[in-house]
Amino acid sequence: MARKNTERTGLIFPDILMKLKRGPQVILPKDAGMIIAISGIGKESICVDAGAGSGWLAVTLGNIAKKVTTYEWREEFAELAQKNINRAGLTNVEVKRKDVFTGIDEKEVDLVTLDLADSEKVVPFAHAALKSGGLVVGYLPHAEQVQQFVKACREAGFAEDKIFTIECIVREYLVRDRGFRPENTGLMHTAYLTFAKK
Amino acid sequence: MARKNTERTGLIFPDILMKLKRGPQVILPKDAGMIIAISGIGKESICVDAGAGSGWLAVTLGNIAKKVTTYEWREEFAELAQKNINRAGLTNVEVKRKDVFTGIDEKEVDLVTLDLADSEKVVPFAHAALKSGGLVVGYLPHAEQVQQFVKACREAGFAEDKIFTIECIVREYLVRDRGFRPENTGLMHTAYLTFAKK
Amino acid sequence: MARKNTERTGLIFPDILMKLKRGPQVILPKDAGMIIAISGIGKESICVDAGAGSGWLAVTLGNIAKKVTTYEWREEFAELAQKNINRAGLTNVEVKRKDVFTGIDEKEVDLVTLDLADSEKVVPFAHAALKSGGLVVGYLPHAEQVQQFVKACREAGFAEDKIFTIECIVREYLVRDRGFRPENTGLMHTAYLTFAKK
Amino acid sequence: MARKNTERTGLIFPDILMKLKRGPQVILPKDAGMIIAISGIGKESICVDAGAGSGWLAVTLGNIAKKVTTYEWREEFAELAQKNINRAGLTNVEVKRKDVFTGIDEKEVDLVTLDLADSEKVVPFAHAALKSGGLVVGYLPHAEQVQQFVKACREAGFAEDKIFTIECIVREYLVRDRGFRPENTGLMHTAYLTFAKK
Repeated sequence: MARKNTERTGLIFPDILMKLKRGPQVILPKDAGMIIAISGIGKESICVDAGAGSGWLAVTLGNIAKKVTTYEWREEFAELAQKNINRAGLTNVEVKRKDVFTGIDEKEVDLVTLDLADSEKVVPFAHAALKSGGLVVGYLPHAEQVQQFVKACREAGFAEDKIFTIECIVREYLVRDRGFRPENTGLMHTAYLTFAKK
Repeated sequence: MARKNTERTGLIFPDILMKLKRGPQVILPKDAGMIIAISGIGKESICVDAGAGSGWLAVTLGNIAKKVTTYEWREEFAELAQKNINRAGLTNVEVKRKDVFTGIDEKEVDLVTLDLADSEKVVPFAHAALKSGGLVVGYLPHAEQVQQFVKACREAGFAEDKIFTIECIVREYLVRDRGFRPENTGLMHTAYLTFAKK
Repeated sequence: MARKNTERTGLIFPDILMKLKRGPQVILPKDAGMIIAISGIGKESICVDAGAGSGWLAVTLGNIAKKVTTYEWREEFAELAQKNINRAGLTNVEVKRKDVFTGIDEKEVDLVTLDLADSEKVVPFAHAALKSGGLVVGYLPHAEQVQQFVKACREAGFAEDKIFTIECIVREYLVRDRGFRPENTGLMHTAYLTFAKK
Repeated sequence: MARKNTERTGLIFPDILMKLKRGPQVILPKDAGMIIAISGIGKESICVDAGAGSGWLAVTLGNIAKKVTTYEWREEFAELAQKNINRAGLTNVEVKRKDVFTGIDEKEVDLVTLDLADSEKVVPFAHAALKSGGLVVGYLPHAEQVQQFVKACREAGFAEDKIFTIECIVREYLVRDRGFRPENTGLMHTAYLTFAKK
């Protein structure tokens, strides 16, 4: 939550993430917050995440859920994610060295989070892994990825009225004696978020 | 997460909130998500909330934290909040029938959330209740309230570089064969969120 | 500029538009303002518009430019557009009953505005009609239309670094004794605007 | 409209502004576009602007209106504004070396634009200068300035339902073969715009 981060990136981090090493691309608190609040995950929830990347989302989810399994087949990132999980002091987050495009092992899962170049290809496995009422979420930078992800959700059997897409824009404010106003520049886009509920 | 809610309000609710009765004003998932993600609360966290209102935020926090105490001196709302906590099946959320403007009993708290007409008056009590590293958050519909809240945070001893204000705007998308576009209308504002870290 | 309009649509209209009859879909002042300000049209400018629809954009441009030709092959809309031009008291706006997909007659044009289901098909004609330094603008509700329009601009010979896409979001505020805040709901999307300069 | 500007500032400029020297703070096309489209100024309009600053808004209005008088009592800025008016090739824009806080000489004006530290103090003079149906606009970076400006409008005799405040946010998009998405960062705020109609 240091001000430095705020000023650079338009985002604010909780202490648990400030301990982590930052990889090339992380899912920021604003988007993680949407995933948590909309999925309603809590102390009893089972989550699957892919790919781990630097492990930020896995750590964020692990801080709340009972168990998180994060898939990562690239050795470099699996190691970074494991280090970050250790730094965060979490013992309920497992890095699984497996190609998630070949399937998800877990069953009766509450939440599957997908942040991959071809996340839509994992949607059928996510559908199979989810318990009834569980959610899959795609973190999708481009509109075309959203179209593909939504199509994959329909084909995997998610009901049309249980698929929806949002984006979250956070605006920072300067609050000073001389006045109240938004910061002049800021973060305009990270990714679209598509949710589908089983 | 029913589509009906999406279409009416631009917001989507997790199952746990769909069970609740809705009072006149609730803190919506988009704002609760920001509070959770930025505070970094988890399974071991102790939270204080005031006022309870219909108890939505208390339930959302209770689903994640170890213990939530929500202050509410108005009998009608205290009863509604208690009913909603029961509906959600939570046993770690306590409704305290006390005027929070006279003080906060809890100590070593991780997060204090304030949604009151004069939230700034509770800031000194929040500062006393928080452990080092803990956060107070004000849910503040108007700019003038933000100015007063920020001033109260400074006077209560929060460091200037640990006070910041954001707003969260969620935009919904239509993703159809005929094309990808944002919904034409939607929710433009609920409240500004001011955070201060001890 | 009547308040009624503001409250209903999140938009405010100048007097000249308040005189007009409103068709099923009009280009609103926020988007017309972007087109005017970015193109820099003025008293000496020659504009081509297609399709006329109810003639709102043609009237807005005609109020500023020297001459506007607006294409409309559908009789019903051509008549509505002509009536609106008359109501606005403009004599420099011509409704042309011609299919713009067969070509644009005008030459050395400063601005071509396209609001059609397949606007991208008119881009080659727009390129031919524009003078050097002139702009074509597509009013494009969906992301897919933007992709097609940008592709058509590249193929028609517009330079890559002279093609760009924006959206304009206008937020209204309540400014009262009790405080300053954005309206709770509002207009989230009308269309993306893609510009290309010859 | 060069891409360089786009990438740096999130804004795009018409040719007429590209010729100008840029002072410390200019009113950008997005905000000028709102002023033009909402006021409905055209070839017959008479405008008053204060202060001139580097003259960007005066040039933008002068490109459209019949006559613009821009007040500037600071010699340095009056000279810069005059140079920019000359660069733009406009002969209908006059720089008036007078303190606008002592009054506006012009009568039957269609639009008064105010961008001053204490714009609210000029509102009574603006009301006197405007013809019936004319607009005053305040370019106001801070919320507190908006409150003061709105109060001054009420006191000067503008009807409550003819005073309104907006902000305009422009988002740029990347449209590439690999996909469609908003730029990651951009311009979040310049100023609030408050309009009042006589």
